[in-house]
Amino acid sequence: MINILFAARSERWAEYEQPLRDALDALGLPYHLAQDIAPEDVDYIVYAPNSELQDFTPYTRCKAVLNIWAGVEAIVGNSTLTQPLARMVGGGLTEGMVEWVTGHVLRHHLGMDAHIVNPDHTWEPVAPPLAMERPVTILGMGALGAAVGKALVALGFPVTGWSRTPKDLPGIRCLSGPEGLSEALTGAQIVVLLLPDTPDTENVLNAGTLALMAPGAFVINPGRGPLIDDDALLAALDSGQVAHATLDVFRTEPLPQDHPYWSHPKVTVTPHVASETRAVMAAEVIAGNIRRGEAGEPFQHVVDRNAGY
Amino acid sequence: MINILFAARSERWAEYEQPLRDALDALGLPYHLAQDIAPEDVDYIVYAPNSELQDFTPYTRCKAVLNIWAGVEAIVGNSTLTQPLARMVGGGLTEGMVEWVTGHVLRHHLGMDAHIVNPDHTWEPVAPPLAMERPVTILGMGALGAAVGKALVALGFPVTGWSRTPKDLPGIRCLSGPEGLSEALTGAQIVVLLLPDTPDTENVLNAGTLALMAPGAFVINPGRGPLIDDDALLAALDSGQVAHATLDVFRTEPLPQDHPYWSHPKVTVTPHVASETRAVMAAEVIAGNIRRGEAGEPFQHVVDRNAGY
Repeated sequence: MINILFAARSERWAEYEQPLRDALDALGLPYHLAQDIAPEDVDYIVYAPNSELQDFTPYTRCKAVLNIWAGVEAIVGNSTLTQPLARMVGGGLTEGMVEWVTGHVLRHHLGMDAHIVNPDHTWEPVAPPLAMERPVTILGMGALGAAVGKALVALGFPVTGWSRTPKDLPGIRCLSGPEGLSEALTGAQIVVLLLPDTPDTENVLNAGTLALMAPGAFVINPGRGPLIDDDALLAALDSGQVAHATLDVFRTEPLPQDHPYWSHPKVTVTPHVASETRAVMAAEVIAGNIRRGEAGEPFQHVVDRNAGY
Repeated sequence: MINILFAARSERWAEYEQPLRDALDALGLPYHLAQDIAPEDVDYIVYAPNSELQDFTPYTRCKAVLNIWAGVEAIVGNSTLTQPLARMVGGGLTEGMVEWVTGHVLRHHLGMDAHIVNPDHTWEPVAPPLAMERPVTILGMGALGAAVGKALVALGFPVTGWSRTPKDLPGIRCLSGPEGLSEALTGAQIVVLLLPDTPDTENVLNAGTLALMAPGAFVINPGRGPLIDDDALLAALDSGQVAHATLDVFRTEPLPQDHPYWSHPKVTVTPHVASETRAVMAAEVIAGNIRRGEAGEPFQHVVDRNAGY
């Protein structure tokens, strides 16, 4: 019997219990799945970083902590967590992210907002440039960044992807390292942030890097709030260097009602919906990792504690 | 010497003259290109249907009329036009249409408008369904419809395509004929109109066909204005059967200021910008057809006068 502790908020239990049972049953694994299991008996923890469980010390035989979130910055530095930590990759996250980013890239590319809000009933038939004339830069070329880049290349956008370590992805101009960052941002008309939140990536968009982008560029952040120096972005919006920012993630969520982003005419706030794990698909990923653990195979998507993701 | 008459509005001459010369030069053709050539000397007419030239009788040696527009409904019934009529296919039309339709499909799919216009600063993190859960139906599977369908399939949408004649396109559920139309619309959550404007297609969206769609469906019309029974669409918007309509084309353009579409909260008007011919790319298509004519090869994209497109 494999003892699987579900340690996330109770509304997630309602959402995940049946999909997890279905996925485990489908693999023929004998298991006991519950929200309450004596720590010393737990084999696996299905986990969300906002769980009350923050001290992993008593979970002495636990083989892995399996995250239902993609982001692990709230847990990766927890010194009591000595077991392998897997983050969520797949589980509908990629599809949702590709749809959200592609939609907002096209929205800004096409200048949709001027038609969605048009109280003067202005009829000005000016066709936008074609995608082939609109360079897009993605910071972060992990599973999500690579999938977004592929979708944008298919639509004709010239895509540059930047990542910490060198990558080679078809149709994408791949750059890496500190000098690559400047090159990646120079002249970009749309910049998408899909980096993890680590000490190295904090404020990657700042006064200096914002100034490299093409005048009137668009910033789209479905990654993590701390990637942006908020004061520098507001200044770039006010100067016109950035034409509009669409932001899905923030240093504090929900975004406080008095935050200047809410009322800024050049900012669109979306409530952390760019990508959400879908229980049925995520349950299959988690069950798959449990099967691997039981078979003695390496876990998938294990977090590198030094890199932070 | 090939005599090529340019018969479109003068602002188009400013836009097209140099690209046409470049494209003809690139093919090494000897030509005389002008806005004013004696009718009996004209070999080809580069044409827009809103040209003052409406009587083709004196153009006795003209080998073809080469349209710079995709739509030919304003000229196809002209009885003085006995020469082959080619419509514009390519020329940037396809790319622009794919970008516009994909953008607006994703906009409605993601529910973007609630975030773009959010005066109450509402933070309600409800993730939309994935594209795989959102059936899209395209009416019209010509060059544009097929390209749009391909792009939407790549993003994961289940796509149904309907056309007058049977088609077979990878990844798309292809239906045709009158009974196929009902099947194509039944349960569709997003309907895109890319049919030509012919007597057969007028009012293809009417009270009966609108009722087949899923409740709360979205209508996107970058095709032609007469495809929609406007009164029936307004009634379906008011009843909630249609959640929102994004319309780029109208029976009268510019859309008259007193038209109810302008002020309807569930209608987005875009000013016939979904797809526009790009002069450089269109000039290459036209020069290619002139080369074909001179070489005795069949012209590309010749209009079937009976079908009307």
